[in-house]
Amino acid sequence: MMMDYQLTLKTILSRAKNIYSKKEVISRDYSEDFKYTYGDMYERVKKLGNVLEELGVKKGDKIGTLAWNNHRHLEIYFAVPMTGAILHTLNLRLSAEQLAYVINHGEDKVIFVDKDVVPLLEAIQDHLKTVEKIVIMSDTKEVPENNLKGEVFSYEALLEKASSEIEFPDLDEKTPAAMCYTTATTGNPKGVVYTHRSIVLHCFSIICPEALDLHESDCLMPFVPMFHVNAWGLPYAATWVGANQVYPGSRPDPETVCRLMDDYKVTLGAGVPTIWMGTYPVWEQGKYEYSHIRGLVCGGSAAPRHLIKGYSQVLGIPIIHAYGMTETSPLVLASKPKSYMQDLDEEEKINIATKQGLLVPGLEMKAIDDEGNEIKWDGTEMGELLLKGPWIAGEYYKEPEKTEETIKDGWLHTGDIVTIDQEGYVKIVDRAKDLIKSGGEWISSVDLENIIMTHPNVKEAAVISVPHEKWIERPMAFVVLDDEGKDKITEKDILEHIEPKVSRIWVPDKVEFIDEIPKTSVGKFSKRVLREKYVEEE
Amino acid sequence: MMMDYQLTLKTILSRAKNIYSKKEVISRDYSEDFKYTYGDMYERVKKLGNVLEELGVKKGDKIGTLAWNNHRHLEIYFAVPMTGAILHTLNLRLSAEQLAYVINHGEDKVIFVDKDVVPLLEAIQDHLKTVEKIVIMSDTKEVPENNLKGEVFSYEALLEKASSEIEFPDLDEKTPAAMCYTTATTGNPKGVVYTHRSIVLHCFSIICPEALDLHESDCLMPFVPMFHVNAWGLPYAATWVGANQVYPGSRPDPETVCRLMDDYKVTLGAGVPTIWMGTYPVWEQGKYEYSHIRGLVCGGSAAPRHLIKGYSQVLGIPIIHAYGMTETSPLVLASKPKSYMQDLDEEEKINIATKQGLLVPGLEMKAIDDEGNEIKWDGTEMGELLLKGPWIAGEYYKEPEKTEETIKDGWLHTGDIVTIDQEGYVKIVDRAKDLIKSGGEWISSVDLENIIMTHPNVKEAAVISVPHEKWIERPMAFVVLDDEGKDKITEKDILEHIEPKVSRIWVPDKVEFIDEIPKTSVGKFSKRVLREKYVEEE
Repeated sequence: MMMDYQLTLKTILSRAKNIYSKKEVISRDYSEDFKYTYGDMYERVKKLGNVLEELGVKKGDKIGTLAWNNHRHLEIYFAVPMTGAILHTLNLRLSAEQLAYVINHGEDKVIFVDKDVVPLLEAIQDHLKTVEKIVIMSDTKEVPENNLKGEVFSYEALLEKASSEIEFPDLDEKTPAAMCYTTATTGNPKGVVYTHRSIVLHCFSIICPEALDLHESDCLMPFVPMFHVNAWGLPYAATWVGANQVYPGSRPDPETVCRLMDDYKVTLGAGVPTIWMGTYPVWEQGKYEYSHIRGLVCGGSAAPRHLIKGYSQVLGIPIIHAYGMTETSPLVLASKPKSYMQDLDEEEKINIATKQGLLVPGLEMKAIDDEGNEIKWDGTEMGELLLKGPWIAGEYYKEPEKTEETIKDGWLHTGDIVTIDQEGYVKIVDRAKDLIKSGGEWISSVDLENIIMTHPNVKEAAVISVPHEKWIERPMAFVVLDDEGKDKITEKDILEHIEPKVSRIWVPDKVEFIDEIPKTSVGKFSKRVLREKYVEEE
Repeated sequence: MMMDYQLTLKTILSRAKNIYSKKEVISRDYSEDFKYTYGDMYERVKKLGNVLEELGVKKGDKIGTLAWNNHRHLEIYFAVPMTGAILHTLNLRLSAEQLAYVINHGEDKVIFVDKDVVPLLEAIQDHLKTVEKIVIMSDTKEVPENNLKGEVFSYEALLEKASSEIEFPDLDEKTPAAMCYTTATTGNPKGVVYTHRSIVLHCFSIICPEALDLHESDCLMPFVPMFHVNAWGLPYAATWVGANQVYPGSRPDPETVCRLMDDYKVTLGAGVPTIWMGTYPVWEQGKYEYSHIRGLVCGGSAAPRHLIKGYSQVLGIPIIHAYGMTETSPLVLASKPKSYMQDLDEEEKINIATKQGLLVPGLEMKAIDDEGNEIKWDGTEMGELLLKGPWIAGEYYKEPEKTEETIKDGWLHTGDIVTIDQEGYVKIVDRAKDLIKSGGEWISSVDLENIIMTHPNVKEAAVISVPHEKWIERPMAFVVLDDEGKDKITEKDILEHIEPKVSRIWVPDKVEFIDEIPKTSVGKFSKRVLREKYVEEE
């Protein structure tokens, strides 16, 4: 039989150190861009391992990070799990209340915090029950001025005096490695715990040509925050294949992103649609070179068709549409045309790119209707997407009831309503709770939003379900107009724009113009806030 | 925590069926080329599952195959392990005695045999102790005439009447899936048992861009026999990514290989150096198109420099040098230049290609000298290559003593002597037992062979160690001349060709001209036979 070899993060980092020690990690630091090699990084990860021991961190302890995308965060990504502790990335866009909740619920013992987000921690420190030590990260060895209580350290000072002699322990592959909380639209955030095994297997799948096709020759910029689902696993996968990596640091704006991608000839970026909406006009202005970009991975929420089309046809950059969630590590789907689709015309290819794509190797999926029957793969029938696989959550951390609601019969119920076409391309048509069931017919709010957003004067649109006496539910649209359209475009214009494109019952009963669609902490449309707003106005 | 999801072959086949049901498998059958889709194949695999049950196959039973590379063999590759039984691929080039030994030692219960190798089975049938049933595979439903005893069936007849309704069982990932015996140069062959987990993880690594970079758009031809280490895992990996596959069928000659690669626009071939030596002149003659070939994976033994160079410079086809063995599933190393080596000149790139390459993701390696100390990665120090990983054998089947000799302290001792350069490229310099230690200095027989083979009139060369009173061991060369060189080139010519290229002590004491280098059943030089020959002649 085969060796009983455990899949752990050690496998990943040691390959980068042994084979790709000259390849580089670039990190936009507080004063200037920082650059080092995987060889250098490995030395610092080992030092950090000893620092963790000095701080009293034991196997199974949870270590919080409240930090941007930078090289120190990357070091923690490896050192914490490799010592047997658990990396808990904290979403720094959570409300103070939610942030305190996840730190207490996760029982974080030490928190590593970037210097410019220390105030977030100061604001909630009195409510924290388990945090014993805080390490502030900046580009100097001084502990910056702060109002934190208790033991506070400087990251660089700790590393400076640490030894790099360490033998990381051999861990079982099912040892917890990292955890992340979902940004729940209702109730408290729910924790998902990733294991060494799940991270390694997820990496293998990400790397596959059919998924993100990660090469050693790539230079990868994870723009997706490192506090979102392990930055989609990219820091691990890129390290494994020895790709260069560029981290955009604290509060990067679109201009900074474009500058970094130009300076370091980034080949692959990864982020939510909002980011690529922001960088589009910067690239269009022509100030920064972008011909070296082979693709932009776009996930977190659906990328609108006009964005995909603009990138493809105007800038010549393919958007690689992807789908996943905190519970799925996250990669589940990635959209690429199959080899025999290369002759399709441009519009058809964009149709494919607007879908979330094909199931990546290693997972199982199905979609079921209200009665639990599997839907046909015909691109029309809608059902809830169910998933199974080695990097799919089997439970929520310390939440047996919420686990039971979501993981049933061995399948994760995603809450996303999809169609699947004959080729296997999955399209998210709605969140289960956002789907509108009007007079027995399902209406996709996402489809309606996409149609409204094709209007030349519409910047953003969100559609929600509102109660209706006769039809039970009816769609209502919220629309943000651009400067040109403001005070000019009317409800009638929007409805006339929609009418030819959908069946009659899909046309919203009401269109309301607002200044901005409220967003969740991860940049998704917050339909919950819209619903509350609507209810208040009634 | 994550789901406790098991890595099994079901994951692989179901993806091909669901997403790539239109993609094709082509198989050179007895009368003509056979072509079907993954959709069709899946139906037949399900039927075969039911056939196995009818034949009384139970979980854990060993099912032998004595077959060429064809679509029926591919169906067995999936159906047998997916029912929980164990696929035992039998090397049809073994001696009758060895073949009987491995069937008895493996305790095969049923054997699937291609019609044109039935005589091999007839010859040994009286010595077989466990075989209950035999299924003959051909393109007809009739059982061909034969002298086999006991229950004999026709594959196509069994499939025709079988139902395709089946639910393959959920298996633990550590369930044995397949087994293969090494072609030992001394003693009896040793069995290695692969698990579902090891095959799936090995596939993930093969697929990686840094390894073989398998794409859905590829058309793959596994020329390496399916009775060699699962055809290097390629049938599984290609199915997983939905690549087209071409199987060359019974006794393919170089001309047939070139014809098939042209007809079906094969992008990636895989086989031992001997094959690509054979196809080279056919392509050079220009009868078949080859511009669609993106690479030829070459493993099993070291590819000579002139072969790599000819392919690269004359035909424009990169040879992807790879390394592995039965005990390693087999992929361990694959040679590709790193991105920052693109500017190297052609000769330096060929130097890299002649090395066996970089460790693929997922494994660990080191090389140790006689005293057990790790060698320096300087491209000069030599040591034995040791391996660890989830697709490395942890034992030999029912051979505790042989296991102890080879797997020590958790490492597989490969018996291959290597250098590792600063970039991590491994070069096999010799088999441990073929390395010549002359007066305390190590001489690489492989290096000497490669040097001799650069002589324009030398077709093949093998160097062995012969006993020496003073120096303990000395090199002796066996040389095969081409027609032009025959009766013209002398021992002196060969020695003068070697002398300027090596240190004095490396120059062989004797050169013997022979008509052909004896080969093992897998096409490697048989130094054992040479040694025996030499001893007899003394």
